[in-house]
Amino acid sequence: MRVLGVDPGLTRCGVGVVDVEPNRKATLVDVVVLRSPADLPIERRLARIADGLEAIFEEHRPQAVALERVFARSDVSTIMGTAQISGVAMLIAARRALPVALHTPSEVKAAITGYGRADKKQVGAMIARILGLDAVPKPADAADALALAVCHAWRTGGVGGQAVTDASATSMSAPAPGSLTPAQRAWLAAERSAAVSGAARRLNP
Amino acid sequence: MRVLGVDPGLTRCGVGVVDVEPNRKATLVDVVVLRSPADLPIERRLARIADGLEAIFEEHRPQAVALERVFARSDVSTIMGTAQISGVAMLIAARRALPVALHTPSEVKAAITGYGRADKKQVGAMIARILGLDAVPKPADAADALALAVCHAWRTGGVGGQAVTDASATSMSAPAPGSLTPAQRAWLAAERSAAVSGAARRLNP
Repeated sequence: MRVLGVDPGLTRCGVGVVDVEPNRKATLVDVVVLRSPADLPIERRLARIADGLEAIFEEHRPQAVALERVFARSDVSTIMGTAQISGVAMLIAARRALPVALHTPSEVKAAITGYGRADKKQVGAMIARILGLDAVPKPADAADALALAVCHAWRTGGVGGQAVTDASATSMSAPAPGSLTPAQRAWLAAERSAAVSGAARRLNP
Repeated sequence: MRVLGVDPGLTRCGVGVVDVEPNRKATLVDVVVLRSPADLPIERRLARIADGLEAIFEEHRPQAVALERVFARSDVSTIMGTAQISGVAMLIAARRALPVALHTPSEVKAAITGYGRADKKQVGAMIARILGLDAVPKPADAADALALAVCHAWRTGGVGGQAVTDASATSMSAPAPGSLTPAQRAWLAAERSAAVSGAARRLNP
């Protein structure tokens, strides 16, 4: 099952594509962080992200799309941009007749780490382990998009439609080391293009 | 200047198209209320509204697009749907290289009625008068979309880029009575398809 996860955002939009086997083994296909300059008009920023999303859909042909379910936060302007990008991503999926699933941050954390209140470091470290990466995908939007995609596969198609949120499942997900080079290239490219904000989150420098 | 106004919403999305002369005279071109059933998946609801919007853009070829600027409200689920539809509408405009302008509800009220805290009845009655309609376009989403479009033309192109918010300007906007039949047909069709909620808002039954 190939799942495309989107961590929606107007400034940084994380997009991760993973292949997940019925035995829950997950492999990285691609991960990118789409960006739009804050000085562009809003409609052009949306189109910029939409163009990037469509290129990824076209290249990797996912079978399902997972998005973060957006909740109210203190910063209303951030919510609006996030919801607008969500709308654009869902429209692109719908026009390709792809199912869209929304998962809350705590659902993703529970599925990936076994703990619904895990912090970003824990999610990043676990998604790197699940996908057999040597380092945590950066910026956090990249790791979150991958976590969403794996979460979706594990909660639905990967295990016959049943939600599974126990961390023990991650022990079944070690990928073959030979598959890591293009994967690492992908997230390293994402990292190079990133303007990492806030505290360093890398666990395996 | 032909302006398309959008009052964004997932359940009801008002879309109004007006022609506005440099002398501020405004004529109704079309008004529709797009709908999506609440029992469809969210991505299919967005696609349903997007299809309707694209058909209207294609038919009427507006030169500018005006949307309501969305603010935080108490009902978060409503904000999300509204913002998602805004994103979709802005993407459609951007892909046609059309400029998008956002106006707050109080800017629209001030431009149309001369009073930024006017109620929906006052806006509806004034937009009917401006466009020379015998009755207020219904539901309120239809009247709001038309008000947005007229507001945008008056605040920008219609008066050389200057914002004008005095109500006296509306006295220049009486259309020729002969142009009303297709216009009335359009909004009556919108009205017939409407499931009017809440208190009756019609002023000229």
